[in-house]
Amino acid sequence: MKIAIVGLGVIGGSFAKAIRHHDNKHYIMAIDTNVETLKLAENQGFIDYGETVNKTVLQQADLVIFALYPEVMKEYVRTHKNEFKDGAIITDTTGVKRTVIASMRDVIPSQVDFIFGHPMAGREKRGFEYADASVFEGANYVITPTDANNPRNIEWFKGFLANLGFKRVTITDPDTHDEMIAHTSQLTHAIAVALINSDDRSHETIRFIGDSYRDLTRIANMNEKLWPELFMNNKDHLVTYMERFEEAFHELKIAIQEDDVEKMEAIFKESTARRIKLQESDLRIR
Amino acid sequence: MKIAIVGLGVIGGSFAKAIRHHDNKHYIMAIDTNVETLKLAENQGFIDYGETVNKTVLQQADLVIFALYPEVMKEYVRTHKNEFKDGAIITDTTGVKRTVIASMRDVIPSQVDFIFGHPMAGREKRGFEYADASVFEGANYVITPTDANNPRNIEWFKGFLANLGFKRVTITDPDTHDEMIAHTSQLTHAIAVALINSDDRSHETIRFIGDSYRDLTRIANMNEKLWPELFMNNKDHLVTYMERFEEAFHELKIAIQEDDVEKMEAIFKESTARRIKLQESDLRIR
Repeated sequence: MKIAIVGLGVIGGSFAKAIRHHDNKHYIMAIDTNVETLKLAENQGFIDYGETVNKTVLQQADLVIFALYPEVMKEYVRTHKNEFKDGAIITDTTGVKRTVIASMRDVIPSQVDFIFGHPMAGREKRGFEYADASVFEGANYVITPTDANNPRNIEWFKGFLANLGFKRVTITDPDTHDEMIAHTSQLTHAIAVALINSDDRSHETIRFIGDSYRDLTRIANMNEKLWPELFMNNKDHLVTYMERFEEAFHELKIAIQEDDVEKMEAIFKESTARRIKLQESDLRIR
Repeated sequence: MKIAIVGLGVIGGSFAKAIRHHDNKHYIMAIDTNVETLKLAENQGFIDYGETVNKTVLQQADLVIFALYPEVMKEYVRTHKNEFKDGAIITDTTGVKRTVIASMRDVIPSQVDFIFGHPMAGREKRGFEYADASVFEGANYVITPTDANNPRNIEWFKGFLANLGFKRVTITDPDTHDEMIAHTSQLTHAIAVALINSDDRSHETIRFIGDSYRDLTRIANMNEKLWPELFMNNKDHLVTYMERFEEAFHELKIAIQEDDVEKMEAIFKESTARRIKLQESDLRIR
């Protein structure tokens, strides 16, 4: 099979590495505007061939994986619509699904099967040099089929992802996806940002941190060009979950202010039970 | 040197393991109410001798490390005040300093030098079986001396901690310690609890989580008997930092609600710069 990856950043690069590592029968091509990245990926053996502008790649690819910002992907598909191979499977990796699917509807060429998906794995760093096949090991993947998809292609894609190391591939609708990631991904990023920004810059914080602060601020390293778009495209669910979090946080604050030990104990027992339940069913938790 | 560890849970146990691993010339004793824990630690070679109730341990110990809840430690020191060796160094590991130091003042026996300190390292699990010397590697330690301390003992203790793997040993006053950990430790725990408790229990959240959710909820596994005491004993600083966090979080929410891309970009640039600065000066960040 011939696979094309469009956008060889941290996510596209991780796909290249995971495919090479787990499923080495495929011919891997890439398109990226940065020729140095292409050369590096080719020299390291993660891709077989690269182009900075599509000349021959899309025409050959049986599977095209887009790892571009949502708006850039749309323009790219529109511009190159006649270059995709007949019967090709195309997929995206964007973090919101309702608006992306709605916005892509008019530009998807009729000769391809566009399967929308989202790897629940990533890195806080940008660029191919941080790409790493291991971030997919044991991770979640969500696929949000449309009426236009061929069910056999969905089944094939699920198997392809399982081969790359993903543990749970979930099929759901775009709204459920967007609601769930508002809590698990977008809210967590909003929290990390607010936590690190609420520090007093004059403090020698580095001398007082433990692993909890390291863990909770890791994702405060945000790509400021990508995330506003993702947040705005999921504003309804995100704001709902931000407000649910604000309520839970406020409830704890009141219990502390009022020395309400019984209330605090109940809150901590609940959070402990939930976390233990999460850990019991998840491979990737240390 | 003869060292006694009182309370062989996750923190006391980690001390036993770190001392054995890094500084194996010492004779290590322990006092713990659980005889099985003592047997296990002795069989695994991490302690040389243990007692469930002090008979001979405190009388011999040149250094006593308390790894007990604050209130339990106070009662313990009061009860056993005549059993400590002349000239012994005693230290605690509790996470708040102002109230603990004030409360201990009346019970510290005159023949010992009590150095108050706090390892900025721990595990979300309880018990000796989760004790691990590696959690101290590259970690921070804070010492809050009192007027009663012998400066030579403080210097010696700093060196002892450096030998166990701690990277930065900071000397500061109790109020600065309490203010800083309100942000770096207590606020992070409050956030983790509110995050996991704000989820809808009917959701199949496990299928939608990535590493950000795993990292941000790890410490939601809280010892509900310990933390209310720590929070209440630092209420002023903790509530101040909870409110600073609420403000920063609210500011981001408003920017999202108003599609204010410029504001979001500024917030994310700030958080990214702060996180990169933190990472550049910290060993333990992945």
